[in-house]
Amino acid sequence: MITNEIQRIDNFVDNDRTNVVIQGIGFVGAAMLAAISNATDQAGNYLYNAIGVDLCGDEHSWKIDSVNTGMSPIQSSDASLDAAYREAKSRGNLLATCNEFAYSVADIVVVDMNLDINKNTLGDAADYSFTFDSYLKGIRAIGDHISPETLVIIESTVPPGSTENVIYPFLKGIFEERNLEDSSISLAHSYERVMPGEGYLSSITNYYRVFAGIDENSAEKAERFFESFINVSDYPLTRLHSTNASEMAKVLENSYRAMNIAFMQEWTEFADVAGVNLFDVIDAIRMRPTHKNIMAPGLGVGGYCLTKDALLADYGYRNIFKGEKSLSMSIEAININDMMPQFTYKLLHEANIDALNANIAILGVSYLNDVGDTRYTPTGLLFDLLSEGNSNVHLYDPYIKFWEEKDKVVNTTLHSKSGLDVEVIIFAVSHKEYREITLEQLQVAFPSLKCVVDANNVINSRVAKSIVSSGVQFIGLGKTKNS
Amino acid sequence: MITNEIQRIDNFVDNDRTNVVIQGIGFVGAAMLAAISNATDQAGNYLYNAIGVDLCGDEHSWKIDSVNTGMSPIQSSDASLDAAYREAKSRGNLLATCNEFAYSVADIVVVDMNLDINKNTLGDAADYSFTFDSYLKGIRAIGDHISPETLVIIESTVPPGSTENVIYPFLKGIFEERNLEDSSISLAHSYERVMPGEGYLSSITNYYRVFAGIDENSAEKAERFFESFINVSDYPLTRLHSTNASEMAKVLENSYRAMNIAFMQEWTEFADVAGVNLFDVIDAIRMRPTHKNIMAPGLGVGGYCLTKDALLADYGYRNIFKGEKSLSMSIEAININDMMPQFTYKLLHEANIDALNANIAILGVSYLNDVGDTRYTPTGLLFDLLSEGNSNVHLYDPYIKFWEEKDKVVNTTLHSKSGLDVEVIIFAVSHKEYREITLEQLQVAFPSLKCVVDANNVINSRVAKSIVSSGVQFIGLGKTKNS
Repeated sequence: MITNEIQRIDNFVDNDRTNVVIQGIGFVGAAMLAAISNATDQAGNYLYNAIGVDLCGDEHSWKIDSVNTGMSPIQSSDASLDAAYREAKSRGNLLATCNEFAYSVADIVVVDMNLDINKNTLGDAADYSFTFDSYLKGIRAIGDHISPETLVIIESTVPPGSTENVIYPFLKGIFEERNLEDSSISLAHSYERVMPGEGYLSSITNYYRVFAGIDENSAEKAERFFESFINVSDYPLTRLHSTNASEMAKVLENSYRAMNIAFMQEWTEFADVAGVNLFDVIDAIRMRPTHKNIMAPGLGVGGYCLTKDALLADYGYRNIFKGEKSLSMSIEAININDMMPQFTYKLLHEANIDALNANIAILGVSYLNDVGDTRYTPTGLLFDLLSEGNSNVHLYDPYIKFWEEKDKVVNTTLHSKSGLDVEVIIFAVSHKEYREITLEQLQVAFPSLKCVVDANNVINSRVAKSIVSSGVQFIGLGKTKNS
Repeated sequence: MITNEIQRIDNFVDNDRTNVVIQGIGFVGAAMLAAISNATDQAGNYLYNAIGVDLCGDEHSWKIDSVNTGMSPIQSSDASLDAAYREAKSRGNLLATCNEFAYSVADIVVVDMNLDINKNTLGDAADYSFTFDSYLKGIRAIGDHISPETLVIIESTVPPGSTENVIYPFLKGIFEERNLEDSSISLAHSYERVMPGEGYLSSITNYYRVFAGIDENSAEKAERFFESFINVSDYPLTRLHSTNASEMAKVLENSYRAMNIAFMQEWTEFADVAGVNLFDVIDAIRMRPTHKNIMAPGLGVGGYCLTKDALLADYGYRNIFKGEKSLSMSIEAININDMMPQFTYKLLHEANIDALNANIAILGVSYLNDVGDTRYTPTGLLFDLLSEGNSNVHLYDPYIKFWEEKDKVVNTTLHSKSGLDVEVIIFAVSHKEYREITLEQLQVAFPSLKCVVDANNVINSRVAKSIVSSGVQFIGLGKTKNS
């Protein structure tokens, strides 16, 4: 079996193309695989044999099987991702395996393993747990097999300092064990800015890319690689002076975003007591180009990056660079964001009806609009808070059938029997299907409706007004009453 | 004398123009006076009699005298401001007075008095002192004299809630004393975004303006007024739904800016220990339109707005609206910014030479580049820290001859005898004269130079390299050593 797999890999790479191995077929690795298999030279010749590697075992084999049958291993609303997998399969330059032999044929290895950091206590993000252990197991698999000429690109989000101070010495040790020249290690760091949704695959190839090499040679090799599959004429590459800088850029840009959301939360609460429509205020402020990035009020923050990248940064600061301070403001932002859904819960408290002892529908489980992605979704805390009380909570999301983290069935359409006794609905996510909703649709789906809470600026003011006119209470987070 | 002044005002307004009184001839009021006196209708006829009012007494009379002789009461690098005063004087539609009779002829009063909030403890901005007392004295002067048709526009930065909850009831009380219909009060709030420098006057007339009225009638009147002197075709007005909203927009946009500067400070300290050039990282991040507003490292924050507006906001939140929370993140940002110059001081500590027992020159006293404005300049704390030690500190700024707050003479040029024994220079402000400086100029001005600290990304990398090549130590805040 293993011999067969080695033979299969050998046959797969028996051509003139360059061999690129993507380690980790997750949200990023799957998109990278598609992008790499798509890459051509100017004459239209495909450049790469794209090989996805993930762990062996039943838990992961579905991903490998999916790739090998020409299907995307991740669900996405991006049709071009599915097409890329289909086409690569029929073309024959895409393969997935759990066999580490793949690394030994690699000209380039792109590391897309997740490197997790765990929050131990909700609301106290400074109390986190982190270890490189399992990540370095993956790096060992690479180091044990690659040739001295192989370029390794760390694409995972890692604590700043990791590539130079953790991964490089670790690979060096492995090369020494293998009696290879450690000076031959080619190592780089780069980060993607992939965005779930209809432009998923395009966000790999049509966006600004930042990278750095552990030395000039590594940086040069990485630059040639990125130029080969990224639209660099429209999105020029940025080569930074060190992998520390590249790693820092990634966690800094996400911390910037997270912090600006957290900042707005205290103003949302202020605007609430002052009776100010904060969305109008923000529109006025955004007229200034210097203030365009000011964030809007909302239910909360989810996803894999904004909820944790400041913690990875803080780990690098304190543990790799032995900084005496911490990123206290950035960490506090994570805390504020993690607790944001409490405010929507509080708005429900203030409803004239007893909204916390009602049948409630949450419209939106995903952390992001127009996408079915429940990773760290803020709907999670809202659901928990409501479930602690006497509310009976129904869940809706057009992109999610089952919410694994909560082990709950989700209604994909509003035309569900479960809406019959719903008195309160909460718009949690600005999915297209909800943005375009009408009062009539709501009345049909929820005939007992008494109160609508818009926690994410989902419905437009015209529909909000029609809701109020119909005698249903309307509460808009960040808005004045009935606006 | 007073009768003469009343006669003078009466004569001044004896024409068909609308009478606009600006209360408070300070940084904003002086620019407003110029803008109002400049305003014409489409046929080129001047629209307004512009009257500046400030307090009586020797302390203030120089401002009034200055306006009445056709000279700008504030120093500025904006030649168009001086020209506007000259032309208005010869044209005859500009006058200044301390006589409150001016309010009785006013069709519109624009209130540009400062409303100060005082920090009691450096580094603990939540401990502030605030009172409306002196501000309401100024409002009383208006209320005692205006006619029921006069529109009063609050242009001062005030705690959100002030116009509706403090100034309106106060004016109403005065109207009752005067047996006037309180329903006739026309009151609006609007904020300027005036920016010191060469575009000073233009920043009044060529920029986005936000306003709101206490009622529909007030808002309409205010809108017609703003349309008459602001370039609204290029910079459309934003009318907000309440004066609370307009007041909040002002302090929120400045708090946004202050908070983003504070956020970057902890990353500056991180980048320092990680050996990362943060300016390069920021350039990489700013490629993303969603991240364009990320701020750069620097010496600190000064000026009248960013250093205090979050405190005014917090006052309104807690005292006018009785909020149970505070704007803790925004206040913490003020604290961080107030203490920022400590980091430059710390960088000096780390210099190989004993930079804190040296003759030091600080290049830049103003809080802003290309402007001579020392209000709350961060050079202040840096100067204090250095003066506490054994350093002998020389001050330089091309725009400042005398630093009133510190009672210190400032050298306007580098060719000064005082530079002979200077061993360490600190670039504190990015004035044009310093941005374009050469190594040769530095060597001539400071023949004993051993160390250059760039605390504000003032000098370019070519000059920095030439400094290092010449054997002088270079420390760049936010940069890697010798970059």
